[in-house]
Amino acid sequence: MGSQQKKSNVLLVGSGGVGTIAAVNLEVGGLAEVTAVLRSNHDAVVKNGFHIKSCDHGVLSGWRPSKIVKSIPDVQKENLPPYDYIVMSTKNIPDVPPTAADLIKSAITPHHTTVVLIQNGLNIEKPFFAAFPNNAVLSGVSLIGSHEISHGVIEHDDNDRLVLGPFRNPNLDAAYEEKVAKEFARIYSAGGKTNCTYTADVGFSRWKKLVYNACLNSICAITGLDTGRIRLADGALDALVRPAMEEIRAAAKKAGYDLPPEVVEATIDMDPLTMYLPPSMLNDLRKGNFIEAENILGEPIREAEALGVPTPTLKVLYGLLKAIQWRTKEARGMVEIPPKEDFVAQS
Amino acid sequence: MGSQQKKSNVLLVGSGGVGTIAAVNLEVGGLAEVTAVLRSNHDAVVKNGFHIKSCDHGVLSGWRPSKIVKSIPDVQKENLPPYDYIVMSTKNIPDVPPTAADLIKSAITPHHTTVVLIQNGLNIEKPFFAAFPNNAVLSGVSLIGSHEISHGVIEHDDNDRLVLGPFRNPNLDAAYEEKVAKEFARIYSAGGKTNCTYTADVGFSRWKKLVYNACLNSICAITGLDTGRIRLADGALDALVRPAMEEIRAAAKKAGYDLPPEVVEATIDMDPLTMYLPPSMLNDLRKGNFIEAENILGEPIREAEALGVPTPTLKVLYGLLKAIQWRTKEARGMVEIPPKEDFVAQS
Repeated sequence: MGSQQKKSNVLLVGSGGVGTIAAVNLEVGGLAEVTAVLRSNHDAVVKNGFHIKSCDHGVLSGWRPSKIVKSIPDVQKENLPPYDYIVMSTKNIPDVPPTAADLIKSAITPHHTTVVLIQNGLNIEKPFFAAFPNNAVLSGVSLIGSHEISHGVIEHDDNDRLVLGPFRNPNLDAAYEEKVAKEFARIYSAGGKTNCTYTADVGFSRWKKLVYNACLNSICAITGLDTGRIRLADGALDALVRPAMEEIRAAAKKAGYDLPPEVVEATIDMDPLTMYLPPSMLNDLRKGNFIEAENILGEPIREAEALGVPTPTLKVLYGLLKAIQWRTKEARGMVEIPPKEDFVAQS
Repeated sequence: MGSQQKKSNVLLVGSGGVGTIAAVNLEVGGLAEVTAVLRSNHDAVVKNGFHIKSCDHGVLSGWRPSKIVKSIPDVQKENLPPYDYIVMSTKNIPDVPPTAADLIKSAITPHHTTVVLIQNGLNIEKPFFAAFPNNAVLSGVSLIGSHEISHGVIEHDDNDRLVLGPFRNPNLDAAYEEKVAKEFARIYSAGGKTNCTYTADVGFSRWKKLVYNACLNSICAITGLDTGRIRLADGALDALVRPAMEEIRAAAKKAGYDLPPEVVEATIDMDPLTMYLPPSMLNDLRKGNFIEAENILGEPIREAEALGVPTPTLKVLYGLLKAIQWRTKEARGMVEIPPKEDFVAQS
């Protein structure tokens, strides 16, 4: 038990492409013990472990985190030691209950557990500040390319670069937030295989990633084209992608983050064209899943509006994605609509 | 042959839901003999005739037009009598060759044949004026509800109301255009079962129909929701439909057509909600077909631009539909893209 006691106790919620590599990073550094909450892939991983083909870690066959559980633990009822960190790498879909904060409530120890959100979009910390006013919440912006291609099988083909820093919670001491953020970055990087950068100002990395997510991700999801094909399709870059990206740049600038003009073309060219990579929301729609439109499009639009920056392109994309989200809700029986009536031809 | 000689010789191109009812109207009036060019439904109709369930004509079982042909006739080579009218009720997709004007070239007799375009959108007459400078071209705006539900089976459930008038061809005498238009309206209405209205100014009816087509039709196509569900989906009317319709109203007004404000809600409520009716472009996409985005969205946007009217919502919808059209082209092997490369995880 000697060295074990020094390890941080980490709960991982969301062990898909991004979360599983986070778990590997945390475990291989030897400074953390990860309990992974598995759902769809639970039985496969309990039986065979993860099969991971990783550009950072090589091939890991039958890999397992320290503990595997099937649902969010209840630290009080189960009399568990407190979690030092809860890493959330699930999709974040506030318009479909339960919310992410509701989900992890039973695993939080007030004044102790730090929540690490490796999730997309803006204002994702706010529901956590409201639910857990005395817990630090960290921003993790991940630029990893990693996907779970079948239950427990992870293909990690673009290096893990995690930009980490505290969301500023006015209830807490900034020095404390900085300390837990730097400590998590240290634990995460201890294996020496990943690139975890601490930042004091998380806004820049969040707005910068929106250039991809609010624009390319949205437009690919709506049109059904991947990031390669959207570059080949008739005029889509000029009509849609570039105007949307310039709106994000304008809003970011007003919010205090000056993204250079080059960010537009660099983001368009980020995924190699011939990879024909479907961004996350296109993937989600193809699987019939909900999409993260609220945090990666709705929140930036509302921020821009508050700052007086017009977002005519983004607003239309957002309206369309909300309608598409409603379609998924209907498909899952979550909304009721009046029955279809027959309008028979009268003769 | 006595009464036969007085009949107008009409070629019908496009015998789906709209065109077949046009053929019925023309034939039942006794003043026209219709030659229908049939493609996908040719064999079924030759064998069994059309089966038509019509709110205007009752049930017509085994109905056939005067003549059925498989391709556009060549009046010169086949030594045929000239067609007085060619009625075009195909989809009009100028961005996918052959164009509608190319298609009917061999059936046109210069200075004689009048082209009747029962098709959607703006500026659809221009390619015909260019190809056939000495032939009259008529505008038919159809408010019919009629669909071919399987080959040769037509369900006509909303009355045929055709607004007809000449497109102004500066090469021709306006009095001549008026004469052939009124004559066609007479022939079309002779059976007494339909409502064909002559109009001297076709712009109004075209812009008015764009309130539906450029907006509801586009938005339903992109979101995958029919005209009932788009009214139920979260905020889609306020975020998308109403702004798009107001842009069409503003452009129409600048073009000289004052569509009253009430047109917006009237158009939204036009199809009964519980009919859950998919507009034409949604139907087309569901079948993997091309969509009429150029004439019902591209042309109005270009007209608005020329008139100095901003169309921020419509432009985004148009950009998305063009990208979706490209997807269909790719699916049909009409565009070539670089081969996919493997980006293997390095270990």
